[in-house]
Amino acid sequence: MTKFDKSIDKSLIKIGLNKLQRQFYSIRNNKIFELFVISIIIFSALMIGANSYEISSTTLRVMSVLDIAITIIFLIEIVIRFIGEPNKKRFFHNAWNVFDTFIVLVSLIPIEDSELAILGRLVRIFRVLRMVSIIPELRILINSLVKALPQLGYVMLLMFIIFYIYAAIGTTFFEAINPDLWADISVSLLTLFRVMTFEDWTDVMYETMVVYPLSWIYYLTFIFFTAFAFLNMVIGIVVNVLEQERQLEADLLNENSGEPTMSELKQELAEIKALLQKGGI
Amino acid sequence: MTKFDKSIDKSLIKIGLNKLQRQFYSIRNNKIFELFVISIIIFSALMIGANSYEISSTTLRVMSVLDIAITIIFLIEIVIRFIGEPNKKRFFHNAWNVFDTFIVLVSLIPIEDSELAILGRLVRIFRVLRMVSIIPELRILINSLVKALPQLGYVMLLMFIIFYIYAAIGTTFFEAINPDLWADISVSLLTLFRVMTFEDWTDVMYETMVVYPLSWIYYLTFIFFTAFAFLNMVIGIVVNVLEQERQLEADLLNENSGEPTMSELKQELAEIKALLQKGGI
Amino acid sequence: MTKFDKSIDKSLIKIGLNKLQRQFYSIRNNKIFELFVISIIIFSALMIGANSYEISSTTLRVMSVLDIAITIIFLIEIVIRFIGEPNKKRFFHNAWNVFDTFIVLVSLIPIEDSELAILGRLVRIFRVLRMVSIIPELRILINSLVKALPQLGYVMLLMFIIFYIYAAIGTTFFEAINPDLWADISVSLLTLFRVMTFEDWTDVMYETMVVYPLSWIYYLTFIFFTAFAFLNMVIGIVVNVLEQERQLEADLLNENSGEPTMSELKQELAEIKALLQKGGI
Amino acid sequence: MTKFDKSIDKSLIKIGLNKLQRQFYSIRNNKIFELFVISIIIFSALMIGANSYEISSTTLRVMSVLDIAITIIFLIEIVIRFIGEPNKKRFFHNAWNVFDTFIVLVSLIPIEDSELAILGRLVRIFRVLRMVSIIPELRILINSLVKALPQLGYVMLLMFIIFYIYAAIGTTFFEAINPDLWADISVSLLTLFRVMTFEDWTDVMYETMVVYPLSWIYYLTFIFFTAFAFLNMVIGIVVNVLEQERQLEADLLNENSGEPTMSELKQELAEIKALLQKGGI
Repeated sequence: MTKFDKSIDKSLIKIGLNKLQRQFYSIRNNKIFELFVISIIIFSALMIGANSYEISSTTLRVMSVLDIAITIIFLIEIVIRFIGEPNKKRFFHNAWNVFDTFIVLVSLIPIEDSELAILGRLVRIFRVLRMVSIIPELRILINSLVKALPQLGYVMLLMFIIFYIYAAIGTTFFEAINPDLWADISVSLLTLFRVMTFEDWTDVMYETMVVYPLSWIYYLTFIFFTAFAFLNMVIGIVVNVLEQERQLEADLLNENSGEPTMSELKQELAEIKALLQKGGI
Repeated sequence: MTKFDKSIDKSLIKIGLNKLQRQFYSIRNNKIFELFVISIIIFSALMIGANSYEISSTTLRVMSVLDIAITIIFLIEIVIRFIGEPNKKRFFHNAWNVFDTFIVLVSLIPIEDSELAILGRLVRIFRVLRMVSIIPELRILINSLVKALPQLGYVMLLMFIIFYIYAAIGTTFFEAINPDLWADISVSLLTLFRVMTFEDWTDVMYETMVVYPLSWIYYLTFIFFTAFAFLNMVIGIVVNVLEQERQLEADLLNENSGEPTMSELKQELAEIKALLQKGGI
Repeated sequence: MTKFDKSIDKSLIKIGLNKLQRQFYSIRNNKIFELFVISIIIFSALMIGANSYEISSTTLRVMSVLDIAITIIFLIEIVIRFIGEPNKKRFFHNAWNVFDTFIVLVSLIPIEDSELAILGRLVRIFRVLRMVSIIPELRILINSLVKALPQLGYVMLLMFIIFYIYAAIGTTFFEAINPDLWADISVSLLTLFRVMTFEDWTDVMYETMVVYPLSWIYYLTFIFFTAFAFLNMVIGIVVNVLEQERQLEADLLNENSGEPTMSELKQELAEIKALLQKGGI
Repeated sequence: MTKFDKSIDKSLIKIGLNKLQRQFYSIRNNKIFELFVISIIIFSALMIGANSYEISSTTLRVMSVLDIAITIIFLIEIVIRFIGEPNKKRFFHNAWNVFDTFIVLVSLIPIEDSELAILGRLVRIFRVLRMVSIIPELRILINSLVKALPQLGYVMLLMFIIFYIYAAIGTTFFEAINPDLWADISVSLLTLFRVMTFEDWTDVMYETMVVYPLSWIYYLTFIFFTAFAFLNMVIGIVVNVLEQERQLEADLLNENSGEPTMSELKQELAEIKALLQKGGI
């Protein structure tokens, strides 16, 4: 085989691969392919649910076979999507692709060990999340939720500071009264979260009021501060969302409208005036 | 009787029916007729309420007579509305009419059988819903609620996925701790709904924290995710409603205003310029 | 005394009354007078509060004297406001004046009878509400709340229908399980209100799920319907309030702006064109 | 030393101080200096948290040394910020500076006395609040919260009046039933706050319904009134915030837009008309 033949060979492979890529790309964007994957995910979710009920050993064996089948289908799907991707580097820039690949690879590991069995089950559960990575509308929803988080950063920091100060005060004063609720700062933080959700908060309060009759001030101010900060957070999000909507609307208005602007009208008037002054002479 | 006579007969029947239809149509749209039907519905609702108290056998007999009377009145009302309808086919296109007819027809079935007695009672209860089908404002309200549902579809799907994953994890880890709460996926889903409503959720948490001290992470992240998704849903509705209001307002503005647009003004200016340039020469 | 003298007398009385009216009118609108009445109301509220603690008989006697003093001051205040009112008929058109007069008159009735003693205490408690009738800002607030109620009428009717149907179903099925919660329609309505506030609602549910394992559907759909209707109500109010704000703003804009409208500009252009066409010939 | 020398000395000191002030001012605004102080505050917060756990006496001794170090660093930081301030009077006009100075000065007092030990711990806890005084975004957030409070004044007053009246009624009727919940007006206020948060409110109600079967009216109207007033408050804040946003937006629009106004266009048209009328003659 000459050097020339080899280079022809490589070209042929390249062309072949390109053809494969284009074919797989069209498979990836096929609605039927997508629906098939979604139904497999739903089936996998149902199997997890069924697994939680008591089942006969026969069914269990059938299920483990089905599980292997699902894993293989998912593997093939990932491979198709990877080959179908025109720009291979971009594939792993997408966090959802990384997540999918990780979930599929981990479920490939055979798990005999009882210690790892629980990890295997968890990975199978998280396969349900593939629903989000497959359906674009859910992906957009999650992305918008993630984007909203940093905006709330400072309000959340403030809320944590309020929680921390109250937890420190609570531990200092109430530890002797009920160590189960106020033993240390982390337990106190949990107790305060419970108070914030109004879950049996009066039981917590009445207990400390026996020793410190004025400790209701502690609880009422805490509820007031957290409720106020929370309200502020919610309003912050609402205003933000409305702002974005308005911006979007304004942009749309400017783009679509063929209406002349005031400046254009003024320009016209200036030209008319010039004509008149010239004509008047 | 000749063929000609027959056709005259048929025509007379048709004319008679048409007259009847028009008469019944006017009855149907009569305010007094409507108020009468509403008062019968209210009376029927009160009877259901009275039925829940312990009552003497005499009263019971009176009531069963009254119940038959109500059923007959409802039957007559449906017949009037059906005959009064100009387009008979359209009558059953309206879901409320179908609902009304079904309720009336089922309450016609005589119920001696103790097994069916409970069904008979249920049908009598659902007669209260006829209130919604009679009062147009309530019908509009219900329709708008139903219309809002599909918009929330994806957020609800996302919420269900969150619930499902957490329920699967919960069953895996906590089944041995408290089978009453975590036996299988459906029981776990119910327990998680309880946690979301903050109903004694700390009891559920403290129980699992004895075995898994870090299980508070499970509950706190779950509360955080669902609260966040719920918030998103509420904001979604609010923005949507405001959007619709704004659209309505904008449409109203465009329709009502006799104000000339910018484009019209520009047109005028162009004409003036043309006149000037012609005149200038 | 002649008839003429009498008429002069009457006129003098009339002039005297008019003078008195004007004087009392200025007293009524005096800031210091208002502050004095407010401080008396606050003092009366504090006395009610103090009364709830155990107090010595000496203090009790002092208090009953003070109570008489407060009653007399309130009586004088009402008289001043009544005389100060230019249009006597309009005085009782104002619901707050009627309320004030009623409260003062009832507290004038001496109460020795132990049966009426409780009524006397209640009237003294409702004197705190005079705060609302005195401070204009609070009066406006209450009025706006009352105005908002009828708008919510249909949503509340719908909510009551939902409650009524669920209560009737609940009584039918669950009465045998726990008569304390589901004995009759009114008790069931109270139980459902409890479920809506999420107060130990799982206890209610778990109890019925022992007999009817599917009864969770009953509770979950109820929570869903009421939450949805409530949400709708809140959004209704918000949209309404924003609408009013926008209307107010728009009115303000139209009033203040000396800006010419588009129509005026078009009129100007038409005149210019007419001039040009005339001049062109 | 002559009088002249002295005055030169003083000038030199003044120049030296000015130089120092400028140097310290630049230190104060240094990003690294700020980050250093923030990390010290975080470290101090972590130490408070660690303190709540059981720790060996060695660690305790290390911690007390570290605590002294933190106090000294804070003291130096305050001194730098004070000297760095160009206008010394303005330093104490800022509430946050006063707070910082107070916290640092109090933590300087040596506390051997066991009575004061608790005060010392509290001051150390409040050092975490210095986080707010250091980070500008949190300061802005707190300031905006404080500014929103007076606007809510009247709604809160109304809510307190509702609470007070219901508490007085509650004490009058229910004191004999359960003195723990309804002994006097302050205890009743606390019980009503508990009812408002829906925390075991049915337990409170069922207890009084044994004696007064109609007392559910008391609770339901109370929940209705407070929920309505609260809703009003929230809407008030939302509308307010949106109003401010709109105002800000409008101001921005007016400033940025180089667009001519309608009045300017009308002026132009008037000039053109004048030219035409002159030219027409």
